[in-house]
Amino acid sequence: MSEIARLILASGEKCADMRYGAGFSTPDEFFYFECGRERGVIVSPLEYSRAVKEAHREVSVYAESDFLGGGRCDRVELVKALAEKLRVKGFLVPDDFPLYWADRIREAGLAVRPAEGRFFPAREFKNELEVEAIIRSQRAGEAGLARAVEVLRESEIGADRALFWNGAALTSEILRAEIDLEMVRRGMLPTGTICAGGAQSAQPHNAGSGQLYANSPIVMDIFPQSATSGYWGDLTRTVVRGKASDLVKKAYGTVLAARELGKSLVKAGAIPAEIHLAAARLMEEAGFHTGRNETADFGFFHGLGHGVGLEIHEAPRLSPRNRTPLRGGEIVTVEPGLYYPEWGGIRLEDLLYVTGSGARCLTEAPDFLEID
Amino acid sequence: MSEIARLILASGEKCADMRYGAGFSTPDEFFYFECGRERGVIVSPLEYSRAVKEAHREVSVYAESDFLGGGRCDRVELVKALAEKLRVKGFLVPDDFPLYWADRIREAGLAVRPAEGRFFPAREFKNELEVEAIIRSQRAGEAGLARAVEVLRESEIGADRALFWNGAALTSEILRAEIDLEMVRRGMLPTGTICAGGAQSAQPHNAGSGQLYANSPIVMDIFPQSATSGYWGDLTRTVVRGKASDLVKKAYGTVLAARELGKSLVKAGAIPAEIHLAAARLMEEAGFHTGRNETADFGFFHGLGHGVGLEIHEAPRLSPRNRTPLRGGEIVTVEPGLYYPEWGGIRLEDLLYVTGSGARCLTEAPDFLEID
Repeated sequence: MSEIARLILASGEKCADMRYGAGFSTPDEFFYFECGRERGVIVSPLEYSRAVKEAHREVSVYAESDFLGGGRCDRVELVKALAEKLRVKGFLVPDDFPLYWADRIREAGLAVRPAEGRFFPAREFKNELEVEAIIRSQRAGEAGLARAVEVLRESEIGADRALFWNGAALTSEILRAEIDLEMVRRGMLPTGTICAGGAQSAQPHNAGSGQLYANSPIVMDIFPQSATSGYWGDLTRTVVRGKASDLVKKAYGTVLAARELGKSLVKAGAIPAEIHLAAARLMEEAGFHTGRNETADFGFFHGLGHGVGLEIHEAPRLSPRNRTPLRGGEIVTVEPGLYYPEWGGIRLEDLLYVTGSGARCLTEAPDFLEID
Repeated sequence: MSEIARLILASGEKCADMRYGAGFSTPDEFFYFECGRERGVIVSPLEYSRAVKEAHREVSVYAESDFLGGGRCDRVELVKALAEKLRVKGFLVPDDFPLYWADRIREAGLAVRPAEGRFFPAREFKNELEVEAIIRSQRAGEAGLARAVEVLRESEIGADRALFWNGAALTSEILRAEIDLEMVRRGMLPTGTICAGGAQSAQPHNAGSGQLYANSPIVMDIFPQSATSGYWGDLTRTVVRGKASDLVKKAYGTVLAARELGKSLVKAGAIPAEIHLAAARLMEEAGFHTGRNETADFGFFHGLGHGVGLEIHEAPRLSPRNRTPLRGGEIVTVEPGLYYPEWGGIRLEDLLYVTGSGARCLTEAPDFLEID
């Protein structure tokens, strides 16, 4: 009775650990547990058929009524019955386990310990099926990008450089919808596609809104999640409809060089912080300084990249703080950017699968700045 | 120093309370707090501009650096600094506050108490802007449904009753994509549209897959979330392409009668359990029994309805367990269903705004069974 089992209480839609452990997703919460070789889920009658059909092969499916008497639905009693069955005195849970239920389970005399760091460390290292799922999402994102480029090429430049398409003003919202439609056709959930032009493109997380203009950068950051697998893709390109200024051209070339330098340094054994710093240094030395004034950050002020999997942002981070060497098997973005409120922003993002000797680039989208 | 402040740590995308309190959504986690009349968010540099632009007017926006010295990013230190600023000894948090951070904050000597029930009880009662946002999502769902009906009407009935459309087999996946495309055009995020035919329609949460057939029920449960407002719509219709059997017709008529009875009972002061039981009784008395055999539940085995807002399933539930009277201002679904593995399922769902004298129906989609 001394062992600790692993326990998750979450919906598959909100909790990537649940989806990873159980193998399926639901809008409503259910339990997952793991004890030695035993793995199981405990679901409501409404989810029973789905669970039987979609759970990982190794995961046993239980109904709540297997643990509780008829009609009752008391989560604490259920967890107590589970602990008895598994002969454990407590549970290791994900760091975001719901506090209310943790407190109730502790009051019932069971230990509840949140994991330090990742609940499933293996999530960081992708197997073949996961790599394939991520590539499928990435291809859908690239189809969305190709559609956006087509729309921009078809667009016309009106008075004051405003772009028009299909007889109407071309806005961030319209361009985003065209990208998203292309991805939905491929079974993706588009949740926050960025199409930011002009000054908005200088804010890395600004999704973009309103009229788009010629001769000014448009950042398109496209990150679809597969409705079936749950795995994400992630890519960013920056284009100019018409002619880019010399300054924008220089910034584009510098970001591209930083991305390629970053990619060349990604391999098993490499230290993420050093990859970040090398890319940052290249841009600084090219004359693009990073800093903060009273109104905004400028230059390169985010991490160089992040892991991608069942979450769009997951470990490992390619940030100046992460000194844990890559091990191989991770999928990470490399996405340097330069942002200046005076003229906008440039970000270029590729997706890499880390191997022993280097990295395989999972992005096939071409690189170009101007769309004439 | 005795007061308790309210605190949320979450991303707006995963936590409806955060979106409700702060007024905006992000993919990454940030802090929200409330103390007396003071409300604020504490965000990273990357989210600062978005927060300033999109936060509720009454919510002050702080950068992490307003609470921490340069460069550090320690959440516990940040919360300690916040408690000092607010002169409180602890925090009331949502029930799903992340356990890891609750434990760390408690270790630092501050109280962390999860809310019993709702963190923002007012979320249950919608103001005019919220009602309008939900209606916009509902209209997008209805546009999706209209598209599906159009596709089914255009479809042809081949050998073995298999449906064909545009020269190819008509599957759940294709019908779902047509619905979803229509909703994406209207700025919605389609996250799990159900198009389940045949035996799959007897499982209320089965999203549907594979070939669709004539003369057999197809359940379409459509619940879009607005990408901008975050509010959901929710509607369900069941149709038959071709001719329905007498049994399916009778079940359809019974579910429709149960829905209309349920709707007529919804008003301020009504007890949700009694509305559920009245609808269930009507169906039982029409000869459609509820029970469970070795392989599946059959009959009517889910709650009659649920609240809809920033979550697709939220309070109040119209379930046999909920005896708290409605107060007026809630938005709830009424969605009886009948499910029998031998022939499939029927579910019909409308959305209601609860008023003092009754309820305003927010669904405009027509009711019909057969598409000839």
